[in-house]
Amino acid sequence: MPVYELYQCGNFGGVIDTTSSAEARDLSGVVCVVTGGLGFIGSNLTHSLVAMGAEVRVIDALVAEHGGSFHNVDGLAVEIIVANIGDDRVDDVLDGAQVVFNLAGQVSHTASMRDPQQDLRLNALDHAAFLETLRRVSPTARVVHASTRQVYGRVDRQPVDETSAANPLDVNGVAKLAGEQLHMVYHHAYDVATTSLRLTNVYGPRQRLSSAELGFLPVFMRKALQSESIRIFGDGLQRRDCLHVSDVVSALIAATADAAVGRVYNVGHPQDSTLVEIAELIVASAASTGGFELIPWPHDHQRIDIGSFHTDSSRIAAELGWSASISLGDGVADTVSFYRGDSWYLSSI
Amino acid sequence: MPVYELYQCGNFGGVIDTTSSAEARDLSGVVCVVTGGLGFIGSNLTHSLVAMGAEVRVIDALVAEHGGSFHNVDGLAVEIIVANIGDDRVDDVLDGAQVVFNLAGQVSHTASMRDPQQDLRLNALDHAAFLETLRRVSPTARVVHASTRQVYGRVDRQPVDETSAANPLDVNGVAKLAGEQLHMVYHHAYDVATTSLRLTNVYGPRQRLSSAELGFLPVFMRKALQSESIRIFGDGLQRRDCLHVSDVVSALIAATADAAVGRVYNVGHPQDSTLVEIAELIVASAASTGGFELIPWPHDHQRIDIGSFHTDSSRIAAELGWSASISLGDGVADTVSFYRGDSWYLSSI
Repeated sequence: MPVYELYQCGNFGGVIDTTSSAEARDLSGVVCVVTGGLGFIGSNLTHSLVAMGAEVRVIDALVAEHGGSFHNVDGLAVEIIVANIGDDRVDDVLDGAQVVFNLAGQVSHTASMRDPQQDLRLNALDHAAFLETLRRVSPTARVVHASTRQVYGRVDRQPVDETSAANPLDVNGVAKLAGEQLHMVYHHAYDVATTSLRLTNVYGPRQRLSSAELGFLPVFMRKALQSESIRIFGDGLQRRDCLHVSDVVSALIAATADAAVGRVYNVGHPQDSTLVEIAELIVASAASTGGFELIPWPHDHQRIDIGSFHTDSSRIAAELGWSASISLGDGVADTVSFYRGDSWYLSSI
Repeated sequence: MPVYELYQCGNFGGVIDTTSSAEARDLSGVVCVVTGGLGFIGSNLTHSLVAMGAEVRVIDALVAEHGGSFHNVDGLAVEIIVANIGDDRVDDVLDGAQVVFNLAGQVSHTASMRDPQQDLRLNALDHAAFLETLRRVSPTARVVHASTRQVYGRVDRQPVDETSAANPLDVNGVAKLAGEQLHMVYHHAYDVATTSLRLTNVYGPRQRLSSAELGFLPVFMRKALQSESIRIFGDGLQRRDCLHVSDVVSALIAATADAAVGRVYNVGHPQDSTLVEIAELIVASAASTGGFELIPWPHDHQRIDIGSFHTDSSRIAAELGWSASISLGDGVADTVSFYRGDSWYLSSI
């Protein structure tokens, strides 16, 4: 009898197949731990891993407002422990882990400015504790950490590759960078086989749509699905590259390759668009009657906005053979279809 | 009656004059707060500020093994509060502060690997709390933060300027970088007038010599003063630029200039030397009969060693007019002379 809580759910499949674009790495029968596995990206990864035949253990703290929910893994046969990754209780879950996808963390930039210490705890200190547990309990596990392109801050030269200096403009960027660098320190100092992925803006199924603080994509999607007007700050000409979560899942799995050990990779999309273009596409895809409007920048948002950003993902393409496979148009259509089939996401978690 | 403890000491001067090389900024009558003011660099700064006629308030947590001691400010008329910079109790000290020199922190790289969370707390979380207090209590104060060249990690291109990407190799470098970046975030988001200085290896009076964990310079100095053999890891051909603490004090004061707001500066010495050359110089200056010897690298040290490092300080020279003024030979001679006159440092704190 394990000391952690064990949930076993029936195995009757997810709503959409997120494994289609995954690299052909065989994780069948492999013991995988997914931290943050009840959240947006983590649950999509968990769906894919289960479909590949991996033995999946999920750790999630279910921090309020973060989007984690049992609903996200409904129907999957996975072990779940509800715990902070810094807790001693994760020892048992890590014991025997072969691959650890470390996705736990705080993702809201505005929340990070409201409570800087909490963001540093969730994105840095808890990861230090987790890495200490890892090197003691499961020192040979492959570890893939989810970082963010937010670590770069405002960058002059576009597209942005990994040699650009990181000058984050908000506490979330500072804390995520510290978490990422801790993973690299544990590789250099202790041979823990870590990789970190700096993810661009991600959208897709199982994202919490009801918060205004988890980035612009879920907000745009919710407004469009409810035929409300999408409000864009400023002139809407800031550019972003957006990645469907299935492409993120395939990048996470590709990053378990040996060649990725000790490496940091940008993970973005070759196609960048203005916020106006993205809004138009989402409005059209959802057949929203709300349209969109331009409104003046709220002061506190503008100061920590990074302007345009386009990810250069050529390093991961060259070294691991990964590149985004889903166009924004196809990805948005898939996402709209998912939420039309599960309206729970519009109002819950 | 303030809520904090108030210590008033007689004003009968420090042992050496650290103001001679300071930039001619007039801080006479200015209310200055020095966090970590009982430590090595902080106490030397405090001596200079008092000599300039500033009104100095010191905050120091006197964390064990960190080198902070009342002995360092013996004879100075300063207010001292013994508190962590994250404590609510610092509110009163910051009230009315015009210049804040934020030097508090953990400096031991090996200690940071032993207790990563503690290092992150002292160098990042506590600074987040301190910056929150600052922007509430004293939002217009000039703030100068002490960072370290340790944030860079191992760098291919020498000398190293501020555009080099920071890839720290130990937890201390990760945490110090987070602390530095938090200062920049508070400038961008809230107009707090922050500057951060990435200091190279520093030596000089009032450094704790009795620890093996505060860098090689105090260890070399202690061994030479006691005529014991200096042990150098490896071939001793790694290069370093070393800065006398008086030059650091002048850089801290120069960094209160308006032009420095929102900027990060390297602070190093144009002269770099091998560890063998530095040991030879210290041995000769102290007339040590112990000499030095080369020994194999301890495994845990080698993994986090950065190899050679030479600081490029041209940005601070161009923008603030600061450059190092004390040669290694003169600085070591001054340092030996100081410790010969105060043997307390060889065995205490």
